[in-house]
Amino acid sequence: MHTLPTPVMNYAKDTLARLVALPTVSAENRAIPETARLVGELLEDLGLRVEIHPTAGAPVVYAEGGSSGPTMLFYNHYDVQPADPLELWVSDPFILTERDGKLYGRGANDDKGELVARLAALRWLKDEHGHLPLRVKFVIEGEEEIGSPNLERYVEQNKDRLRADAVIWEAGGVDAVGRPLVYCGLKGIVGLELRCKTAAYDLHSSLGAIVQNPLYRLAAAVASLRDREGRVLVRGFYDQVRPLTELEEETLARIPDESPALMQEYGLKGFLGGVQGAALYKKYLAEPVININGIHGGYGGPGSKTVLPAEGFVKLDIRLVPDQEPRHIVALVKAHLLENGFDDIEVIELEFGEHPARSDLASPWVKTALEACREVYGQEPVVWPNFAGSGPMYPFTHVIGAPVLGLGIGYPGSKIHSPNEHIVLRHFESGIRVIKRALEKFAGL
Amino acid sequence: MHTLPTPVMNYAKDTLARLVALPTVSAENRAIPETARLVGELLEDLGLRVEIHPTAGAPVVYAEGGSSGPTMLFYNHYDVQPADPLELWVSDPFILTERDGKLYGRGANDDKGELVARLAALRWLKDEHGHLPLRVKFVIEGEEEIGSPNLERYVEQNKDRLRADAVIWEAGGVDAVGRPLVYCGLKGIVGLELRCKTAAYDLHSSLGAIVQNPLYRLAAAVASLRDREGRVLVRGFYDQVRPLTELEEETLARIPDESPALMQEYGLKGFLGGVQGAALYKKYLAEPVININGIHGGYGGPGSKTVLPAEGFVKLDIRLVPDQEPRHIVALVKAHLLENGFDDIEVIELEFGEHPARSDLASPWVKTALEACREVYGQEPVVWPNFAGSGPMYPFTHVIGAPVLGLGIGYPGSKIHSPNEHIVLRHFESGIRVIKRALEKFAGL
Repeated sequence: MHTLPTPVMNYAKDTLARLVALPTVSAENRAIPETARLVGELLEDLGLRVEIHPTAGAPVVYAEGGSSGPTMLFYNHYDVQPADPLELWVSDPFILTERDGKLYGRGANDDKGELVARLAALRWLKDEHGHLPLRVKFVIEGEEEIGSPNLERYVEQNKDRLRADAVIWEAGGVDAVGRPLVYCGLKGIVGLELRCKTAAYDLHSSLGAIVQNPLYRLAAAVASLRDREGRVLVRGFYDQVRPLTELEEETLARIPDESPALMQEYGLKGFLGGVQGAALYKKYLAEPVININGIHGGYGGPGSKTVLPAEGFVKLDIRLVPDQEPRHIVALVKAHLLENGFDDIEVIELEFGEHPARSDLASPWVKTALEACREVYGQEPVVWPNFAGSGPMYPFTHVIGAPVLGLGIGYPGSKIHSPNEHIVLRHFESGIRVIKRALEKFAGL
Repeated sequence: MHTLPTPVMNYAKDTLARLVALPTVSAENRAIPETARLVGELLEDLGLRVEIHPTAGAPVVYAEGGSSGPTMLFYNHYDVQPADPLELWVSDPFILTERDGKLYGRGANDDKGELVARLAALRWLKDEHGHLPLRVKFVIEGEEEIGSPNLERYVEQNKDRLRADAVIWEAGGVDAVGRPLVYCGLKGIVGLELRCKTAAYDLHSSLGAIVQNPLYRLAAAVASLRDREGRVLVRGFYDQVRPLTELEEETLARIPDESPALMQEYGLKGFLGGVQGAALYKKYLAEPVININGIHGGYGGPGSKTVLPAEGFVKLDIRLVPDQEPRHIVALVKAHLLENGFDDIEVIELEFGEHPARSDLASPWVKTALEACREVYGQEPVVWPNFAGSGPMYPFTHVIGAPVLGLGIGYPGSKIHSPNEHIVLRHFESGIRVIKRALEKFAGL
């Protein structure tokens, strides 16, 4: 693979540095307007017509342009996850830093880096063809990391404007050993907070003999939700799970087993329930799970403190597979808690709830993208029926009705959502190149 | 009840202010030497001979003096609990602040205030009698709030020096409705930290489908230890519990039921297991319990973060009753975790482990103290066979062999170990007075 033209690569690195410098943490409502403004300017610089669309939350940056012909819709987001714990970052999360062939920074991969790869590919197409040889649309939201609470409504309200023949999803890249990876769906997600408060204030722990401990109650509630293997114990939880098609089963079975590389990268002793090989990927991609994001209450400092805390909380997310409905799942969890005596646990729905989505693996756009991958990477791409992550794909597959897949610049070691998020420069280059080739092929070139 | 002589009260308030101003948080190893020095100076000012005895941890301030006659040993501690959460304090925890007839500050009650009450009582005795009409000894340690890891050894090594006819324990006071409360024992305690780490770093929560969640594991471990009513589920946990004597049973049954006042003070809907009346006090004072002091892992900020945390921890204490042995109980908990499949939970013993202790309720010193209470408070004292809290009483009852009881200045609303710890001035006065009268009676005056 040849390196990219220098102006394209310089543009990509400079643009990513400008975006990473803005701490666009949607969970903390930081730097939203200025990031939307910068993204709009970057799209205008490519000759696209830009509109900043307000929503009930962060605005959507919408853009369209290019020639007539087939229409490609890009979905991206300009917000990022919180950077904490800050002390674990080797360099400032909001200063893009090149080190050992990698670019570090919050959002370097997810999703500012992916967005920049697309902008760089379009710039390259224009440089090479003198114009964009297809029609493009961008929907770039600012609330993906808090569950896209306003996007489904936005897509419904703008469905004519957003009409497209195909969609490139927010991210993509290569697998643990560098093979191109294409995915055609996402899990759904709901986020809940469980709270328990038993007293007006923290008490001396000797009172624990007669006063309920809220941290015990939260622990018992969490323990009741699943088992050690990750099997969810909530009654009715699996009832809506749609059986896999034969093609989906085959596609899952063809995924190369990279579990040893994953175990080494993540520092694991093994996988949940001891699965490996094909069973691992089926569990990973085609099974729902309840995950604990955080649990906090009482003393956490050095040494000991003999306190009976007055309250505590648990944050959890539930990853859904087709056709589990977020609202139904929340109702089941609430019913489970009540049925099991957890009437002292308050359940708060965090501001998200996304349907799972999975495009038809047999669509022509999937074939086109796979061909582009073969050309650019020189090897057979790996296909995942759906990604294990979540996002607001459902409105695109169900309202717009277009086939959706992900192509991009990441790899499993990117540490998205963690300290030291980064991309590998080599992946950045191949990601820009594969987007360019896929668009050319999509345009019939 | 008459108010105290002005010089005695001024001395008490000024001395307490000086002690509270030192942030003697033993869990954070703060201000230990300067507090020991100040305590030594205060004792010297009363004419006692003072020695600062080094230990493997914080030094013990030892003092003795007074006339010949019966010997009273005072046990106190000069260290305090951490002040966090700081934002819940109305005034600076390390500035003694008088407000609405109360004195606020960390240690105002536990245990700097109690120590000061004794110093004030001795000063008053000297003023009134021209000398101390008995022999007194003080053992004032600096590690009580981290479990007195060095005191048992200290008492054993100094058992001849510490010989005494009776012991006044670190604290005392009145019950929820103002009746004098005398207790003759303490629960034991062990502190453990449970840790779980499943990955090298925090991962995207989508990996929760195939990677174990350490917070789920910790929750399941905690949930396995006890039930909703507080009954401990660890095999063999209750085997060493000594049956109550008839006198202990009668004494427990005579404790007035103040559960409505306690519920209001603490903001409770009810007590663990729905107990009330005599059953409540038996559960509170005569039953062991496993209490969760804190649990922390993963995201705890605003909104949501879809992270699969790499690790988490739980801090817990176990309150023991005679004759449960701390080391044996720790071994049982470790065995329980292994037997229940929690081989992925690391158990760390925090630096404490105290035996439970209970003095003979029929001893003459108990009768003397109760008479002093009747005189000072003008009402029948309430007797608790043992307090629900813990402390290093065991070496005193078992090595020195003296009867031990608590007299002092606190009340159930003192918020010891919590923000806004305080004493009521009126209780401070009656506490000083009852110590003085008990010592006079003990000396045959």
